[in-house]
Amino acid sequence: MIRLDTLQDDFDKALNRLTGWEESMDVTVEQRVRAILEAVRLRGDAAVLEYTRQFDHLDAGALAELSLPAGKLQEALEGLPAADRDALEQAARRIRVYHEKQVAQSWEYTEANGTRLGQRVTPLNRVGIYVPGGKAAYPSSVLMNAIPARVAGVNEIIMVVPAPGGQLNPLVLAAAALAGVDRVFTIGGAQAVAALAYGTESIPAVDKIVGPGNIYVATAKRMVFGRVGIDMIAGPSEILVISDGQTDPDWLAMDLLSQAEHDEDAQSILISWDASCLDRVAAAVEKLLPTLERESIARKAWEQRGALVRVRDAQEACAIADRIAPEHLELSVEDPDALLPKLHNAGAIFMGRYTAEAIGDYVAGPNHVLPTAGSARFSSPLGVYDFQKRSSIIFASPQGADELGRLARRLAEGEGLTAHARSAAYRVRDADGR
Amino acid sequence: MIRLDTLQDDFDKALNRLTGWEESMDVTVEQRVRAILEAVRLRGDAAVLEYTRQFDHLDAGALAELSLPAGKLQEALEGLPAADRDALEQAARRIRVYHEKQVAQSWEYTEANGTRLGQRVTPLNRVGIYVPGGKAAYPSSVLMNAIPARVAGVNEIIMVVPAPGGQLNPLVLAAAALAGVDRVFTIGGAQAVAALAYGTESIPAVDKIVGPGNIYVATAKRMVFGRVGIDMIAGPSEILVISDGQTDPDWLAMDLLSQAEHDEDAQSILISWDASCLDRVAAAVEKLLPTLERESIARKAWEQRGALVRVRDAQEACAIADRIAPEHLELSVEDPDALLPKLHNAGAIFMGRYTAEAIGDYVAGPNHVLPTAGSARFSSPLGVYDFQKRSSIIFASPQGADELGRLARRLAEGEGLTAHARSAAYRVRDADGR
Repeated sequence: MIRLDTLQDDFDKALNRLTGWEESMDVTVEQRVRAILEAVRLRGDAAVLEYTRQFDHLDAGALAELSLPAGKLQEALEGLPAADRDALEQAARRIRVYHEKQVAQSWEYTEANGTRLGQRVTPLNRVGIYVPGGKAAYPSSVLMNAIPARVAGVNEIIMVVPAPGGQLNPLVLAAAALAGVDRVFTIGGAQAVAALAYGTESIPAVDKIVGPGNIYVATAKRMVFGRVGIDMIAGPSEILVISDGQTDPDWLAMDLLSQAEHDEDAQSILISWDASCLDRVAAAVEKLLPTLERESIARKAWEQRGALVRVRDAQEACAIADRIAPEHLELSVEDPDALLPKLHNAGAIFMGRYTAEAIGDYVAGPNHVLPTAGSARFSSPLGVYDFQKRSSIIFASPQGADELGRLARRLAEGEGLTAHARSAAYRVRDADGR
Repeated sequence: MIRLDTLQDDFDKALNRLTGWEESMDVTVEQRVRAILEAVRLRGDAAVLEYTRQFDHLDAGALAELSLPAGKLQEALEGLPAADRDALEQAARRIRVYHEKQVAQSWEYTEANGTRLGQRVTPLNRVGIYVPGGKAAYPSSVLMNAIPARVAGVNEIIMVVPAPGGQLNPLVLAAAALAGVDRVFTIGGAQAVAALAYGTESIPAVDKIVGPGNIYVATAKRMVFGRVGIDMIAGPSEILVISDGQTDPDWLAMDLLSQAEHDEDAQSILISWDASCLDRVAAAVEKLLPTLERESIARKAWEQRGALVRVRDAQEACAIADRIAPEHLELSVEDPDALLPKLHNAGAIFMGRYTAEAIGDYVAGPNHVLPTAGSARFSSPLGVYDFQKRSSIIFASPQGADELGRLARRLAEGEGLTAHARSAAYRVRDADGR
């Protein structure tokens, strides 16, 4: 953990060093992924089966054996302890209600001469959702990726989840049932991304692939981008907490640690104009770390990438937050609404002392797939808008074609594109039109 | 040009061959671009000046000499012939009116227990627009890229346009004045993209870079993606026309050629259930080609990538269009509205016989930056939404933190993330909460 102070001379440089995150490019990984993509593209099911045997130690004679019937999902849901099922159902319902507000509608207007202009909004046809298997099996991730797609009206949602050695997490399957996933294949890795992007004999090609994964999955998604859409490639998770010094230091410490426990590269930053607050939270972190199940991960993240930043005032705190553009921004202050106008860049904003970031991860309603590594400057949480697309509509009346054709002709001539000019001019009415 | 018929045995394969477009990866270009990016990142202005000297034969002693004062843009506008100025002004006005309908608004709702949930929409702070210089100088491209950013409320719009040998197109500068561009630097190539992405002593770093460019510019944009946002990397332009055989063959031929004249890789496809229509348009293309200023480009595009496709009926025409997901889709039929429900994937749809694609390129209002190479299956025209971003808002009341905290705790425990569980549990009220 480092301590920074905006009064120090090299503050700007130190802050850049702290928050700089360069994604590593691994040439070996790229080559291996490229070979997998090519094999699946050319040999379809057979290649997927081979890689699944090799990487997941799952020996299937045909891809049908790696397809889960819908009944299995419902069965998993019904087999859950009541409290788990209830929590998942409430989370799914809240996520659905929130995302329904994001649905964009088509619109159109008609001009005086009868020309119609508009924007048609339609859902993507088929979407693939990657869900990591094994130790990091996150049912919340299934809900957060699948529900917005379902709300958008996507026709078919296909989930892939590796089942190393045949093991599957029942919470993940139950979440798929609640989220309305249509089909599940128990495959993973770059071979699953390839199957979704290119299609095989048994797995239909999708229009977009979303969901988190390891370096092989991320590299594969990056490589198939263009053929299909993808969501953002996520960097390590981050939280930035702005505190006025009046929140219980244990609460703040645990909020920072809940980010740090994600992985060793995760980043937790506390900013305050109350120097004693920074000290108290630092002490609380040290006190709480040994009590965590994931202590070693959280400790490494905190020690390597954590930071306590002393600023002059709230204004300065907001300016720094805006510059960092954090994935999660917690405003642990008396009147968070007063700070909002000074803030522009953040994936999600947790307002007030009572809003633990963790409730946003699971159950509040907004999506937990958020822009990382400063990309909140230019991008948004995953949402229904990621599963809708727009087509412009132009319907010129004969009169509109005449008026607009004259202008288009002139502009096309200015650009030296005379076939454009003449195509417009054909629709211009009088002699002047030809 | 090839002819296809859905009745032929190998139609599916032939269609895939026709529309397949694999972007070429040029390792030499990548290496050169990587070196340019690195040089600009490390040496700023000095590197930009060197490359500008080398590639644009423009010898400036300081970057200030490559910055155009705002007065120059206004001067260019005032110096235009009245008809040019009028056409540009009308285009700018229509583009603005259309894009104003795309502005997204923030929203928020309050739950019974006082918990507030919402989505805050804010504009990007600073955007860079790349405009090609030299022979392919397109003022329409300045309007289409800058106006949506301005409408979104972007704080500062910075345009870069190379001025090879000092030459600048007055129409481009005039369009920049009309679109409300804030600053212009006469630089181009990968070095301009690098300057916008990293910032230099004289050029501020932006949050997103949009606009077309050659292979060096496209490669540079792809490489800086993540550090800044970018728009889509465009493939060659395409048009797909569905005709009922009742539109003047010359009109249809010129519509196809207006796409073909863009570049030799452009693609023009005509689909009809009237076989004689295909023959008549083929003849019209041959008749009109020799009359075009850009005959050689258009001929090459038409011969190499053009196609006439005979289908059984309108239904089948729509199914093929949906599969191709064209950038431009022209419905040259009596009742285009009847086809619309069968169509889902297209960048822009030009309805009826009078709507030449060319009026959409310039003046109708919708954007002419559209998804190519089948990406209309999952992406949209450039729009105001590309210059706005969203932040989720979560403000839990004490009561909400109690209720949501219980659920979050349960779900976090299910995922083995106990710091998450405990951070939520701190806000749960009773003894059960700890």
